[in-house]
Amino acid sequence: MSYSSKIIESAVEALSSLPSIGKKSAMRLAIHLASDSFDKKEKLIAALTSMTNDLKICNQCYSFSDTAVCSICENPTRDRSTICVVETIRDLIAIEDTGSYRGLYHVLGGVISPLEGIGPEQLEIDTLITRVDELEAKEIVMALSPTIDGETTIFYINRLLESKDVNITTIARGVSFGGDLEYADEFTLGRSIKARLPYQQRQIL
Amino acid sequence: MSYSSKIIESAVEALSSLPSIGKKSAMRLAIHLASDSFDKKEKLIAALTSMTNDLKICNQCYSFSDTAVCSICENPTRDRSTICVVETIRDLIAIEDTGSYRGLYHVLGGVISPLEGIGPEQLEIDTLITRVDELEAKEIVMALSPTIDGETTIFYINRLLESKDVNITTIARGVSFGGDLEYADEFTLGRSIKARLPYQQRQIL
Repeated sequence: MSYSSKIIESAVEALSSLPSIGKKSAMRLAIHLASDSFDKKEKLIAALTSMTNDLKICNQCYSFSDTAVCSICENPTRDRSTICVVETIRDLIAIEDTGSYRGLYHVLGGVISPLEGIGPEQLEIDTLITRVDELEAKEIVMALSPTIDGETTIFYINRLLESKDVNITTIARGVSFGGDLEYADEFTLGRSIKARLPYQQRQIL
Repeated sequence: MSYSSKIIESAVEALSSLPSIGKKSAMRLAIHLASDSFDKKEKLIAALTSMTNDLKICNQCYSFSDTAVCSICENPTRDRSTICVVETIRDLIAIEDTGSYRGLYHVLGGVISPLEGIGPEQLEIDTLITRVDELEAKEIVMALSPTIDGETTIFYINRLLESKDVNITTIARGVSFGGDLEYADEFTLGRSIKARLPYQQRQIL
């Protein structure tokens, strides 16, 4: 692409390095920002600068945090006996958004994947075990992807925690709400039939 | 949405104020940037800062520029006797990208639109007339949208330039290359038949 301005050119280049933003979208964004109010640009610059300089990783759950310990780990109203184990911070936010969970989290930073050369020592598994002891946790909710690697990770963590007095649970798998049965994949539908629940129990959920 | 960090929250807010970026995409972008290398963030911040502080509008063609006069207007290899009139800087870049035009540009900043209360005095029309005189331009290429407002603007500018020794041309309209005739709208197809060219002449284009 050709531009009459090197400044716009480097803005387009920087913006198009972001995921899911191509050259054309980056150009639209750059021109929008260039024509935009001074305030809006300043706000975006301030947000990015503070992200570069001030953003920390919580030393408890390994999610993003503004302070040494994040606002979820510090929140006294949350159930400190339950820890939900997730792969990424994105998964944590997705679960937080549902408003259905009031315990703590633990971000592993991935799952065990022999094919990709990711072993347990590269993940926050040791710290999870330490936390289970420290918090005297009663339940560990495994909210990992329903993949072979996810299952392997659950199996591995389960083994480490076997000797302790803690329940390991996994999030329910089955057909999606509002989904059409005929479009559900065979594996999900099969497991969903095998894992059927008494109607009374379902009512409670 | 809930976040463990106010910093991420304000980054998401700033990013989602951009066009075509919703809350979910903004979150993905913010988390990507937060996990990203220091260099990439710095580059984006530098590009935005320089856009806020250093970006100018060319005092000749009214496109974005790093200096008082933009690189296209200053380029000595461009044909200074032809001016292409466009609505927006986006249109300018789209035409530059084709590599089919070697003249100068003039960005009107919109088209005359009585319904939206945009009159000629709000557009860079006076400056266009002055430039035609200064450059002793031989051709003005009207590359405006094929809408009623676009046509009105061409008509208005044409009247102002009638007395001068300058050719007014408009970009060709017709069916798109690679387009299926049956899907072309009636109006375009109709005009495209009326404006048919001798085969020899088409070969030259």
